[in-house]
Amino acid sequence: MTDRRRSGGRAARQAARAASYAVSQPFLTRSLRPYQVLNEEGLATIEDHADRLLTTVGVEVVDYPEGLSVFAAAGAEVDGTRVRFPQGMCRQIIQASAPSSFTQVARNEARSVVIGDPHTVFAPAYGSPFVRDLEGGRRYATIEDFRNFARLTYLAPGLHHAGGTLCEPVDLPVDQRHLDMIQAHLTLSDKPFMGSVTAPERARDTVEMARIVFGDDFVDQNTVIISLCNANSPLSWDRAMLGSAKVYAESNQATILTPFILAGAMAPVTVAAVATQTLAEAMAGMAFAQMVRPGAPVVFGSFASSMSMQTGAPTFGTPEPALMLFVMAALARRLGVPFRSGGNLTASKVPDAQAAYESAATFQPTMLAGVNFVLHAAGWLEGGLVMGYEKFVLDADQASMASSLVAGVDMSENGLALDTLLGHQPGEHFLGSEHTLANFETAFWTSALADNTSFEQWQESGSQDSVARANERWKGLLAEYEPPPIDEGVSQHIDEFVARRKRELSGSGG
Amino acid sequence: MTDRRRSGGRAARQAARAASYAVSQPFLTRSLRPYQVLNEEGLATIEDHADRLLTTVGVEVVDYPEGLSVFAAAGAEVDGTRVRFPQGMCRQIIQASAPSSFTQVARNEARSVVIGDPHTVFAPAYGSPFVRDLEGGRRYATIEDFRNFARLTYLAPGLHHAGGTLCEPVDLPVDQRHLDMIQAHLTLSDKPFMGSVTAPERARDTVEMARIVFGDDFVDQNTVIISLCNANSPLSWDRAMLGSAKVYAESNQATILTPFILAGAMAPVTVAAVATQTLAEAMAGMAFAQMVRPGAPVVFGSFASSMSMQTGAPTFGTPEPALMLFVMAALARRLGVPFRSGGNLTASKVPDAQAAYESAATFQPTMLAGVNFVLHAAGWLEGGLVMGYEKFVLDADQASMASSLVAGVDMSENGLALDTLLGHQPGEHFLGSEHTLANFETAFWTSALADNTSFEQWQESGSQDSVARANERWKGLLAEYEPPPIDEGVSQHIDEFVARRKRELSGSGG
Repeated sequence: MTDRRRSGGRAARQAARAASYAVSQPFLTRSLRPYQVLNEEGLATIEDHADRLLTTVGVEVVDYPEGLSVFAAAGAEVDGTRVRFPQGMCRQIIQASAPSSFTQVARNEARSVVIGDPHTVFAPAYGSPFVRDLEGGRRYATIEDFRNFARLTYLAPGLHHAGGTLCEPVDLPVDQRHLDMIQAHLTLSDKPFMGSVTAPERARDTVEMARIVFGDDFVDQNTVIISLCNANSPLSWDRAMLGSAKVYAESNQATILTPFILAGAMAPVTVAAVATQTLAEAMAGMAFAQMVRPGAPVVFGSFASSMSMQTGAPTFGTPEPALMLFVMAALARRLGVPFRSGGNLTASKVPDAQAAYESAATFQPTMLAGVNFVLHAAGWLEGGLVMGYEKFVLDADQASMASSLVAGVDMSENGLALDTLLGHQPGEHFLGSEHTLANFETAFWTSALADNTSFEQWQESGSQDSVARANERWKGLLAEYEPPPIDEGVSQHIDEFVARRKRELSGSGG
Repeated sequence: MTDRRRSGGRAARQAARAASYAVSQPFLTRSLRPYQVLNEEGLATIEDHADRLLTTVGVEVVDYPEGLSVFAAAGAEVDGTRVRFPQGMCRQIIQASAPSSFTQVARNEARSVVIGDPHTVFAPAYGSPFVRDLEGGRRYATIEDFRNFARLTYLAPGLHHAGGTLCEPVDLPVDQRHLDMIQAHLTLSDKPFMGSVTAPERARDTVEMARIVFGDDFVDQNTVIISLCNANSPLSWDRAMLGSAKVYAESNQATILTPFILAGAMAPVTVAAVATQTLAEAMAGMAFAQMVRPGAPVVFGSFASSMSMQTGAPTFGTPEPALMLFVMAALARRLGVPFRSGGNLTASKVPDAQAAYESAATFQPTMLAGVNFVLHAAGWLEGGLVMGYEKFVLDADQASMASSLVAGVDMSENGLALDTLLGHQPGEHFLGSEHTLANFETAFWTSALADNTSFEQWQESGSQDSVARANERWKGLLAEYEPPPIDEGVSQHIDEFVARRKRELSGSGG
């Protein structure tokens, strides 16, 4: 346990530290228009096909009679556990009430994020049972790993969001670990965070804990939690995910309804068919949230990977998922809801060149597609099975370039620099020019981890590769980490809530 | 010397091998439209500013009176070594005669490339004095390294072009090494190649050697050589580059007129100003080629990097050069000439995660910007100082994904797969479906170097990272390499030409 609690004069130092880590941009605002790979006609065809899928095949709602009732009450045709939708129903329901954009308020209001166009929010990777670092190799994740990644996310200026299940703390009981995870998010960071979705009661615990921090009234009137609800593709939703979505929607909290598709297994192998099915599944989920509470914030999620047709293993950084990403982002814009996809994805076991090529081949399209919420922006290894310490800081560094890219080309007088150009003679360098001196500090994004020195300098400083530098980096960050200030009463109240719920859950034989 | 010459029955085997390496796509044909970061007004502003630069400041033509005469004869204002252009002159000259697209014929016609929209051609890295491999580390390049990279390029299905100075064979005399390099391109590969530009007489040698292979008449009537002529930014052209461009243009051979700009040093630091200056410099160079011979193929080149404002070192994989690339590609399309830029660029010393992130952060925009000729698509390390063996095969593997990406989304009946979607029930997987089985072989691009196996499989096979796999890969390729067939008389004629020219150059005290 390396948590440091506030005491005496330390509070002032903490406040100063927290201020120095304040992100100048709590989220990205894009000037670049999104890249399009399909025209109007193509997108309309996919929408039409998705509608036909919803009217004729429909979706299964598994082990969740309460959900079936919600669909039936809204006018869907419920036949056993199958739900079919009259032509256009899901789209109409979503467009009638789902917000095109919303604010998720953070504990530190300066870190609140707007989720929706023209903005982009980066969150770390989610859900891995393993962690990896250079010395320790690959091992099961623990709650201390979780806390470390909460700290590292807090310290990463390129990450706007604390994320959710940064890794699975498998050292804790399954029915209780959500309490420790939410506690970590609420106390070790002040960025916006994600709630538990593994059961409706855990979603309720998340809302209760948010109420302690933000106050009951505030939570009723604001979105302070966003949570990831995955479909069981093809075309199936279960109690854990829809039940959690219901809890959050009832409380006006946001959900990301995400078909998770390994193309060729959970959907046909082609890009257009994956897009069709993803749209159908996500619309059913988003419509459900709107049926529960019209106006509850929802995000259209898409996770789609290619696969090795030799082994069935998922593959990343391939062109087909990039095309899917561009198509899905366009479909979400047409529907009028925020879109989640992308990240720094890879199948590599270690943070090597494969990991970086594959990550960038997802991350670059993520930026140009105009994604609004980017999960898995840092740390992901081995198809999501592993959260990597070195990979995390390498990805977070890359993510920090996005603000410069999406700002687009500065066409101001200073950006055009016509006088400077006309005032220079051929052969005359610009290093000392007034315009260069006035702009050099902000002209270029600079990586905090890349080595741009000469070969000789690099050699003298130990010939480190990027993983060695990343290893030093995350250790240094954890060593200097101090938690953001929190009211002592609030902190204590959270402790008490967690302790009480653990007693209850242990008592119930969980 | 590992060259193997044709002899007896080996020829048939060689021919079969060569056929098996035949690239199904000798160049890319893009269906995706190019990504735009500036609107019409922004692009017109940059064009206007470039014109003002050409009219008021103009360009220096250094140590090359013959070039000044060409400019003067065409109507430019020549004042000493300074050349200024009447309003719109360069654009008019280029648009009057420069082809928007042209074919560079390869020794093996099946490998000829079309340079211009909607096509893209990948060539390996160019010009490094050093090479690096995993065991040998970094060392000066030799002609044997050059030949190895010529062989590896020949064997890479993702690379469409043999390139030029794959590395500098510093073990050979400066005034003679072009002969060995061109000989290697003409005999070890049958892909299209690049000529020498270090002096006009070396350009002439290149044309002479091409005549031996293709025949005099054929060379007069077809483009069989493309060559890289860099400006000395800001706004200066010298005898070596313009003189070489003149030799090639006179022979109807193609030139890539490329401002090489380290923003902040050779141009102002802002994206728009770099674009303005690049356009001006490239237009002066392309107009020159058209003055020499109207209709001679030219390519609008751009190489622009950011720099570390702390150390002055060039930086790669940053967002600003990506924005420059998008802008320049759009300006080239408006001018109506093919465009060269991009590649797999990095400042990293080794093929680590930094190298891959940076490379992909250039390569992804390269694909989406709609670049027509991509130099440095494989092998580049350390800002171009080093050609890396492992980096080469890693990059070439990544380059092979481009054809799938730029093909865009298949919206055919098979691509849409509506019947397959409607024929499946929720929860029913698609692995065994007829549609999956019919498409699985071509559905997804597959990396030849990525490891997508399980952690356990990866561990059992030695826990190799991507550099270790790449090391095995290039060694295996070189071991199995056999040169493409060549007429023995032609081969002998080239040998004789090279021997004679070396005698002449040695005799002249070179």
